[in-house]
Amino acid sequence: MVKRVAVILSGCGVYDGTEVHEASAVLVHLSRAGAKVQMFAPNAVQMHVVNHCEGKPTQDKRNILEESARIARGDVTDLAKLDVSAFDAAIIPGGFGVAKNLSDWAVKNKECTVRPDLEKIIKAFHRAKKPLGMCCISPILAAKILPGCELTVGQDKEWPYAQTAGALKEMGCKHVNTEVDKAHVDVKNKLVTTCAFMCNVPIHHIHQVFDGVGAMVGEILKLA
Amino acid sequence: MVKRVAVILSGCGVYDGTEVHEASAVLVHLSRAGAKVQMFAPNAVQMHVVNHCEGKPTQDKRNILEESARIARGDVTDLAKLDVSAFDAAIIPGGFGVAKNLSDWAVKNKECTVRPDLEKIIKAFHRAKKPLGMCCISPILAAKILPGCELTVGQDKEWPYAQTAGALKEMGCKHVNTEVDKAHVDVKNKLVTTCAFMCNVPIHHIHQVFDGVGAMVGEILKLA
Repeated sequence: MVKRVAVILSGCGVYDGTEVHEASAVLVHLSRAGAKVQMFAPNAVQMHVVNHCEGKPTQDKRNILEESARIARGDVTDLAKLDVSAFDAAIIPGGFGVAKNLSDWAVKNKECTVRPDLEKIIKAFHRAKKPLGMCCISPILAAKILPGCELTVGQDKEWPYAQTAGALKEMGCKHVNTEVDKAHVDVKNKLVTTCAFMCNVPIHHIHQVFDGVGAMVGEILKLA
Repeated sequence: MVKRVAVILSGCGVYDGTEVHEASAVLVHLSRAGAKVQMFAPNAVQMHVVNHCEGKPTQDKRNILEESARIARGDVTDLAKLDVSAFDAAIIPGGFGVAKNLSDWAVKNKECTVRPDLEKIIKAFHRAKKPLGMCCISPILAAKILPGCELTVGQDKEWPYAQTAGALKEMGCKHVNTEVDKAHVDVKNKLVTTCAFMCNVPIHHIHQVFDGVGAMVGEILKLA
């Protein structure tokens, strides 16, 4: 049976959208495994448009769905149309889009709220015992919606993970230190996480992120 | 000796910039091989900003360097500062940015001109016998600057390659039909090409593009 996987995007670019290499790695590994992929993103205005040379917000306005289409080569669907019954699993790559467009973590940290449509979707996948894959900062969504889950954002004693790992623990999660090229599986919740670029791996070591995303995708497909 | 590779970008998104998955694959394969990478892009306004959901140009203005920084995670240098003597090879991923921002192929086809700064850089790599890697539509740059070179944009008898392959032949190149997961090496010119998304492979077969880019990167590093 071909596994059907929804990939949920939040823009295009690490500082205001989906981290493009994490999304690309997800697609490459799903493709190699013969999965069927459909991409989704909210049809809404981004919280920020960041000049990625300077790391500073500009006055521009951009639409999350339209920018996500840059990663999806045009083939992306409004998140409002995601029918959970049509998929065996969902994966949410990282990037600040998760903390700015899919939630308000960037502003409120552990007091954040998740977009209501996405919260409903994540709960529906969880209720149907369909696996959820999250990398980089995306596990904050699981921490908020699946209380007490096990997850990783890397290491809890090293910058820059430590603060996020600490916040996730304060939210009641079990944080499991995990290397960048590995994924952690919360068997009970069918939640698979990998730290990806949370670990601030330099771009010339990007294959480690690629491999960690591969580990996540592999576990997701085993659980699906 | 660590190989130093310049990767030249042209924006972020298949329809008006660099194809993000081709760029990402280049970086993953270079990383795995232990190469040292520096990314470059012109500090100039894009020809188009295309709404990637609709495939249509908008009235927006965006800067090629700033948009390329979305792929480079901020670490991209003005193309004007590329010092050929500091690198062993250069790779130019595809996407319409090559035909719109690095040249005017999108408008003038085989009568196109290449950005003068980039033309100078390509000629300098060629003169120094340092290998050049190009994928998707990027080989048009070689066709224009290295007359009579051997290259591939896929197949010369199938849509959508055929028209481009025909134009390249009319420009005096030898077009070599090559599968999506393979690369062609022009030994004399140290030019390595692979068709990547020129072949219109669906996104759920993206691993074939990833493997073709891997073949290109492998040959580049052997020649460097």
